[in-house]
Amino acid sequence: MKAGTEAAAIDAVIARVEELGFRAHVSRGAERTIVGVIGDERPVDPEQFEILDGVERVVRILQPYKLASRDFKREKSQVAVGGAVFGGTGIAIVAGPCSVESREQLFETAWAVKEAGAHFLRGGAFKPRSSPYSFQGLGQEGLDLLAEAAATVGLPAVTEVVAPGDVDTVRRSSAMLQIGTRNMANYALLHEVGRSNHPVLLKRGMSSTIQELLMAAEYILHHRNYALVLCERGIRTFENATRFTLDINAVPLLGELTHLPVVVDPSHATGKASLVAAGARAAVAAGADGLIVEVHPHPDRALSDGAQSLRPDQFAALVREVRDIARAVGRHLLGDAA
Amino acid sequence: MKAGTEAAAIDAVIARVEELGFRAHVSRGAERTIVGVIGDERPVDPEQFEILDGVERVVRILQPYKLASRDFKREKSQVAVGGAVFGGTGIAIVAGPCSVESREQLFETAWAVKEAGAHFLRGGAFKPRSSPYSFQGLGQEGLDLLAEAAATVGLPAVTEVVAPGDVDTVRRSSAMLQIGTRNMANYALLHEVGRSNHPVLLKRGMSSTIQELLMAAEYILHHRNYALVLCERGIRTFENATRFTLDINAVPLLGELTHLPVVVDPSHATGKASLVAAGARAAVAAGADGLIVEVHPHPDRALSDGAQSLRPDQFAALVREVRDIARAVGRHLLGDAA
Amino acid sequence: MKAGTEAAAIDAVIARVEELGFRAHVSRGAERTIVGVIGDERPVDPEQFEILDGVERVVRILQPYKLASRDFKREKSQVAVGGAVFGGTGIAIVAGPCSVESREQLFETAWAVKEAGAHFLRGGAFKPRSSPYSFQGLGQEGLDLLAEAAATVGLPAVTEVVAPGDVDTVRRSSAMLQIGTRNMANYALLHEVGRSNHPVLLKRGMSSTIQELLMAAEYILHHRNYALVLCERGIRTFENATRFTLDINAVPLLGELTHLPVVVDPSHATGKASLVAAGARAAVAAGADGLIVEVHPHPDRALSDGAQSLRPDQFAALVREVRDIARAVGRHLLGDAA
Amino acid sequence: MKAGTEAAAIDAVIARVEELGFRAHVSRGAERTIVGVIGDERPVDPEQFEILDGVERVVRILQPYKLASRDFKREKSQVAVGGAVFGGTGIAIVAGPCSVESREQLFETAWAVKEAGAHFLRGGAFKPRSSPYSFQGLGQEGLDLLAEAAATVGLPAVTEVVAPGDVDTVRRSSAMLQIGTRNMANYALLHEVGRSNHPVLLKRGMSSTIQELLMAAEYILHHRNYALVLCERGIRTFENATRFTLDINAVPLLGELTHLPVVVDPSHATGKASLVAAGARAAVAAGADGLIVEVHPHPDRALSDGAQSLRPDQFAALVREVRDIARAVGRHLLGDAA
Repeated sequence: MKAGTEAAAIDAVIARVEELGFRAHVSRGAERTIVGVIGDERPVDPEQFEILDGVERVVRILQPYKLASRDFKREKSQVAVGGAVFGGTGIAIVAGPCSVESREQLFETAWAVKEAGAHFLRGGAFKPRSSPYSFQGLGQEGLDLLAEAAATVGLPAVTEVVAPGDVDTVRRSSAMLQIGTRNMANYALLHEVGRSNHPVLLKRGMSSTIQELLMAAEYILHHRNYALVLCERGIRTFENATRFTLDINAVPLLGELTHLPVVVDPSHATGKASLVAAGARAAVAAGADGLIVEVHPHPDRALSDGAQSLRPDQFAALVREVRDIARAVGRHLLGDAA
Repeated sequence: MKAGTEAAAIDAVIARVEELGFRAHVSRGAERTIVGVIGDERPVDPEQFEILDGVERVVRILQPYKLASRDFKREKSQVAVGGAVFGGTGIAIVAGPCSVESREQLFETAWAVKEAGAHFLRGGAFKPRSSPYSFQGLGQEGLDLLAEAAATVGLPAVTEVVAPGDVDTVRRSSAMLQIGTRNMANYALLHEVGRSNHPVLLKRGMSSTIQELLMAAEYILHHRNYALVLCERGIRTFENATRFTLDINAVPLLGELTHLPVVVDPSHATGKASLVAAGARAAVAAGADGLIVEVHPHPDRALSDGAQSLRPDQFAALVREVRDIARAVGRHLLGDAA
Repeated sequence: MKAGTEAAAIDAVIARVEELGFRAHVSRGAERTIVGVIGDERPVDPEQFEILDGVERVVRILQPYKLASRDFKREKSQVAVGGAVFGGTGIAIVAGPCSVESREQLFETAWAVKEAGAHFLRGGAFKPRSSPYSFQGLGQEGLDLLAEAAATVGLPAVTEVVAPGDVDTVRRSSAMLQIGTRNMANYALLHEVGRSNHPVLLKRGMSSTIQELLMAAEYILHHRNYALVLCERGIRTFENATRFTLDINAVPLLGELTHLPVVVDPSHATGKASLVAAGARAAVAAGADGLIVEVHPHPDRALSDGAQSLRPDQFAALVREVRDIARAVGRHLLGDAA
Repeated sequence: MKAGTEAAAIDAVIARVEELGFRAHVSRGAERTIVGVIGDERPVDPEQFEILDGVERVVRILQPYKLASRDFKREKSQVAVGGAVFGGTGIAIVAGPCSVESREQLFETAWAVKEAGAHFLRGGAFKPRSSPYSFQGLGQEGLDLLAEAAATVGLPAVTEVVAPGDVDTVRRSSAMLQIGTRNMANYALLHEVGRSNHPVLLKRGMSSTIQELLMAAEYILHHRNYALVLCERGIRTFENATRFTLDINAVPLLGELTHLPVVVDPSHATGKASLVAAGARAAVAAGADGLIVEVHPHPDRALSDGAQSLRPDQFAALVREVRDIARAVGRHLLGDAA
């Protein structure tokens, strides 16, 4: 409460707290009086109290997420997808082109990343592009090519879904649904992938806090879809020498706050091919459970994200470096001996 | 090109430029050589060049948007919606509750804002909420109530649509479709409202640049839906004493860059009822074409955004203040004498 | 305290609270226990508690500033400087060149801003420039010219001081010391201007929160130098279409939190001459007590900040527009009839 | 130039370019005309052109720094300080308390970090604190204690200097001068440490871009003080779950842009003891040349930065982890066999 608030205003706040089904607990300090709200505050908007007469500030005590928290589940979750697993001691590597552009480009990349040691094949069929004049992805044709390439080389496919009405189709062509950064707060879509019961890779919004990421996860979990992996992919900051800022702190912090596996996308988080391997090494050193990396046989001809795509030989070098880092932190790449 | 790049690398860049259908223009400076790309660069991803050997940096010369630009249309657009107009000398005021909560709440608010001088009634039926445990809106029932209230008090209704599949339904219940801040880059939704040919109020993403806002507008315009109004609603910054930071610079800058009308939402941009009127006055003083303001008969009982909602008497005071500011900048409220 | 913390850990926290001279107040909620700290917490680093076993989070209740707060002084402060006053009903306008470049440039500007209606003359002699290769100001010669021009045209001078050792010299040549945005957290300098007992214009750090600005003010006030005016001058955000983002919310919010007068610098806050007048109008509409504006007779020849400097005729137009806005909010320009 | 600019305006720009001693090079595109400026543009403010009639935008081609760039010096610099070296294959570790608080605290920490493998002793005597009510450091007494402890345990001392007038004194008590984050743009101080010819550890401003960091370095280098090490210490972003955001991208990017050694401060960059080791591992994995870590024998009694200080046993564990990471990237800790 504000300094000098009269008793009547404090009583009114208490009455409102009790009306909402909580108990109130008053604590009088030297300069301020605090009214504690006893109960599960999650369903209540703290703003409802902020507007009451004499209230200076409302402070949440509980984290607003529940199913995603370590309070709810102490041990780390393991998420099995197409025979591989995220969240064990093995580090999982997802790799492939930003967009599926053609059969030739996709198959060439798929074989290359498989050979270099990737565990999943990524590739976008529906591309959210900031310009309506840019390549928007091949759509259904891209999905079909991806499913075919994945089956041919023997890697589970991960691909993005951008509209609630597409979830069912995309689910049938892939082992894992990706929610992209621009859709982290697209709740209609989150509800739908929650209901799908298909594994989900949820990317952090480029300007979303870690708490908001966990709230987005909560949307999916509360449909009882627990096959969920989180992805740090860089955040927007004042720094513009790189496309985004890889929030490396998020990796160990998410490890404290949630039981969900966490992977890192060093391609988007740096935006520059020459920085991707350093970002990948840092991610695994900091405790990431996996990586998602853009690879293209000819980055200078890519229809999207060329500047941050690795050539197959660069990707193979990255895998070797990451293998050494994994060993240094007492882990290993998925498929290597533990 | 980087310092010391060899002629062969420069030639390769030129070849690539020409292969893509442009002409190249080479300019040699004291320390750097620049390869100019002559032609309409919009459909091309600048990153394609960034990855070429010897390239240091790629600089876009043209703005990536076209239909939204003042180059494309010099005079300010006027957007007529339900008998009123955005973008003329009159300032338009949209007001109403954040969410439609009940018939009583909505009608009480609708009559109050109408009486205070609002020109449009706002109210959300589909609410994007950061928590799945918060009130998510009344959905279809909310839409029906909104349409009824709007007809009863005689104000056109503005309401948010959050999923491509809902556009048609929402269009039938409202005079103007609102795209909320979390959906500014939801391209599936932008395509759909573009195709609807219904007036659109496009809110800036809370972490989107002005250029990205104009690119989102371009998505709608290129479906030939020109009934488009932009909305500055506060951006996310390091400052956390207010919910968002009202980017007042955006108002005159958008006036230079685009012909589209621009309104401001001081409720979200401040997040605090006591700051809303100041934000509204500033917006009109800076050249905004309108305002969108949250009003609730009992903000302390609002199911969403209570802290930033004005009581009807506070809203009436805001209208009076804004009327004076409008006069001071040579404009007037819609419906007042010019 | 974290969920499931044992009683012994809570007791240890209580013991530490009491050892530091506070009383502890324990409140047990449904999922968390809270230990309240009763007493004036300002001198204590909250982090000291964060590190204790079982502590989940520490929340400050009191604002960390005291002398700057409205709790300490309810009524708005009026700061008299050289015959004029900041913080009354009159709006004060400070204008002049970014840098003092030459006698001719300075006198031409000084006469022009005086004639247009400015109340103070600004001009920098010590310029903090991001490049060592840029013009660094005329130093002592600049100070002397400024003092002479100010005396000649009859306007009090405001100028920046950048090093503790210069405070005494600069004080003798000016009516008001400016602390620039890069020095808001230069505590050695704040102590020195605090001790000087000379009026101070304290600019907000371009990446400082409002609370940090008030803490910087506290450094000056606790030397009993109360002749202090705060300045919002734009903050750094992700938006790069403008040089900075004018935080217009800061104006009414500072009005709630502090008794100190608040002025706005629309020149730096926008960085673009064509946006300055809109920023100035918005500032006064939002409640600012004054403006500080860069004016140059030939902006295209300015040695610093040319892009955001107004020509004298543009400045005169700004003053006229601001006069109308001041009237619309029940105020007036200093020197005009109330 | 803007679309449709007349020839006379273009000629005026060319005339101005030539008047300033450059050559102009005109390139006409499909929609825009570009005027290139041939020559060393560094001393010229690009804004001078921005204000000219018809100019749409000014784009710098050269980086504004020179001595700090890889253009100027291709090979990585090695900076020798007190018998150790930054920038070779060995990783340097600087450790010690945030503040020198007492003889006992300092010596206990100094022996502990020495034993755990640190190569430098840090400790602050002059503390920039956001509150005037917080502990401000022991000043001269702290410097004397630091010099004594460093000599006793046999580690070179690194300490912060905050005012130009203190540079000489601090130089005499330490092997390396630290410029803290709040003073990165304190040019009066940068000039003075540049002139001192003493080794400098320059921390990035918490809201400074990488380019601004390199410009601050340029201030020191142009006094021919080349004994300069840069430090990434976390930047301010919208994320508030951690104190700052460790910009891990800055490590490899600085490695591309500059020849200067780069160290990372994971203590400030995370602000939370439990995240420091992960940040340290990530930094070395990404290519950092060293670390600076806060250690305190009793973090819960620290007078500053307790929440992010490691206990000696935690620091010893960090050194072991970092040693393994260094090996994984083909490097080693200073003093270990190469």
